Amino acid sequence: MNLILLNNDDFTDPTRVRLSGRRLEHIVNIQRASIGDTLRVGEINGLSGTGKILSLSNEELEMEVQLDQSPPEPLPITLLLALPRPKMLKRVLQSVSSLGVKQIYLINSYRVDKSFWGSPLLQPEKLREQLILGLEQARDTLLPEVHLQPRFKPFVEDELPEIIGKSDAYIAHPGATMPCPKALDQEITLAIGPEGGFIPYEVEKLQTCGFVPITLGERILRVETAVPVLLSRLTP
Amino acid sequence: MNLILLNNDDFTDPTRVRLSGRRLEHIVNIQRASIGDTLRVGEINGLSGTGKILSLSNEELEMEVQLDQSPPEPLPITLLLALPRPKMLKRVLQSVSSLGVKQIYLINSYRVDKSFWGSPLLQPEKLREQLILGLEQARDTLLPEVHLQPRFKPFVEDELPEIIGKSDAYIAHPGATMPCPKALDQEITLAIGPEGGFIPYEVEKLQTCGFVPITLGERILRVETAVPVLLSRLTP
Repeated sequence: MNLILLNNDDFTDPTRVRLSGRRLEHIVNIQRASIGDTLRVGEINGLSGTGKILSLSNEELEMEVQLDQSPPEPLPITLLLALPRPKMLKRVLQSVSSLGVKQIYLINSYRVDKSFWGSPLLQPEKLREQLILGLEQARDTLLPEVHLQPRFKPFVEDELPEIIGKSDAYIAHPGATMPCPKALDQEITLAIGPEGGFIPYEVEKLQTCGFVPITLGERILRVETAVPVLLSRLTP
Repeated sequence: MNLILLNNDDFTDPTRVRLSGRRLEHIVNIQRASIGDTLRVGEINGLSGTGKILSLSNEELEMEVQLDQSPPEPLPITLLLALPRPKMLKRVLQSVSSLGVKQIYLINSYRVDKSFWGSPLLQPEKLREQLILGLEQARDTLLPEVHLQPRFKPFVEDELPEIIGKSDAYIAHPGATMPCPKALDQEITLAIGPEGGFIPYEVEKLQTCGFVPITLGERILRVETAVPVLLSRLTP
């Protein structure tokens, strides 16, 4: 937690917050902060800055906050990710959130196990938890949006063209021949398949929609490794 | 497992192998292969190619193998990594192995919890398991070497200069001002600190040794995210 994220509910007046639970625990046990100390804080979807601890007990902590700094620039990438297994999804969401992606579409694919769509992790408040962990890590405040798309075909046909808009659209596909482009200076839509890859039908549908298949080379990477590699190659 | 890795012990003659245990299970339950099927195989530290299943039972499988392809190119990076907590170490070793790093030094740092050095995961056969998982994922055969360096100062003073040799040496350091260079066409030695970073004394020692601090920008990333991002930026 390199930044304490604040919700609307935390504010008791415009410059005062009261915290308890996980954040209080972290401040006391990990940061070992005490009264008078200044911590880095940020308001969800708002500015970041500092918080000075005014009072501290086992149950709660009060801070005076000053919020005057902009969050880091978002990454200009919209990510379409074939829904990974829940354990991996957690890590990928944290990682993607820390890297600055703001629009995430979890999509279906033939090789996505149907049971994954029933995971409790897909509940909005659970998704939010993972995204928040990523923001706290990266000292960002802008909460990414996660969209669930459990039906591949209607999503690709009816919604995807508008999502792509004028961006460059790529599918990371081990079978592709075009190497992953580097340091593009524009908006990107990136689709990443499940372990085992998109099936040919899905690749074709995405190509019809404007996606260009790209490869990272001979090595096939796990989704959690491929995602940071791709995001880092594609952006300046 | 995108490649079945073979040990010396598996060979019953130069073109025949017998497998049991984890690999047999994977071939039967995940790949759902049967007699006559051809699978992608590779010999540890050797060539890769194909294996044709000759016989198959609950206990073992026999394959005829033809090994004639070179493994993917190694990444020209020697990695120095402050020892992460065991759970993260597992994932980082798999990821680094799949990305093609061949020399990994797990080093000490003030912010490395002493207990991590007692982890059973640091036993050679346990480390090897994680590295093998990475190779199987990336269809590589060249086993990375992991060196344990539980004493920072003697390692940096006595061994590190020779390890660096003529390579470009960088420390990933959130406090640095120089942005991470891109697509370098040469050997690189990269040092990555613990969560919380190297302390100033350690950064100085590494700088004296020739390391240049670099940054990925405002966002502070977890080690498991920072590693693939850095490796992918630094290499062509």
